[in-house]
Amino acid sequence: MGANRCRLTFDVTARDALRYTPAGLAVSEGEGWHRSMQCEVGRTREVDFRFHWVAMGEVATVMDALPMGAEVTGEGFFAARRKGGRQLQLHLTAVQWHQDEERKAQ
Amino acid sequence: MGANRCRLTFDVTARDALRYTPAGLAVSEGEGWHRSMQCEVGRTREVDFRFHWVAMGEVATVMDALPMGAEVTGEGFFAARRKGGRQLQLHLTAVQWHQDEERKAQ
Repeated sequence: MGANRCRLTFDVTARDALRYTPAGLAVSEGEGWHRSMQCEVGRTREVDFRFHWVAMGEVATVMDALPMGAEVTGEGFFAARRKGGRQLQLHLTAVQWHQDEERKAQ
Repeated sequence: MGANRCRLTFDVTARDALRYTPAGLAVSEGEGWHRSMQCEVGRTREVDFRFHWVAMGEVATVMDALPMGAEVTGEGFFAARRKGGRQLQLHLTAVQWHQDEERKAQ
């Protein structure tokens, strides 16, 4: 199976209301904002982009319960947002909320 | 630093001529095609998308030397292809060509 794994830290900047598939599976989707410094051939570069994310099942209920603006690190895979389209969306299969780290920093 | 790590298997479907920055750094960029089956809430789903990749330095010379259509697994980070844009591109910081596996399979 071809590799397709991503780990991305982002702020939750938009989120649709939690919905359910006909089979009763929770679905949460929305937008995220990633900012970081990344290293490329020994130089650091600023990376800053907004993207679309989607989560299903337990991960969807976790995403739905987060306060807007929460910083999380998600893991998952990328897929086309629309069939044949070039815009990618991150399918979250695990997520960690950085709540504790933020509290320690305050 | 925010996490932004991706590991993606893809076929090299297009590639520009190798170019150099004013500082003499090699740059290779082109397009890739990813296809795989991914697992989401216990179900497998087919993932199929085309995307833009860019590589610098030694990774650029590796990408430039590959035959067109080569299957590789790349590691790197995503960034916006254009400032403020929603189309992402994969910045390859390491790449592995699946040449040996293909030869064994033949």
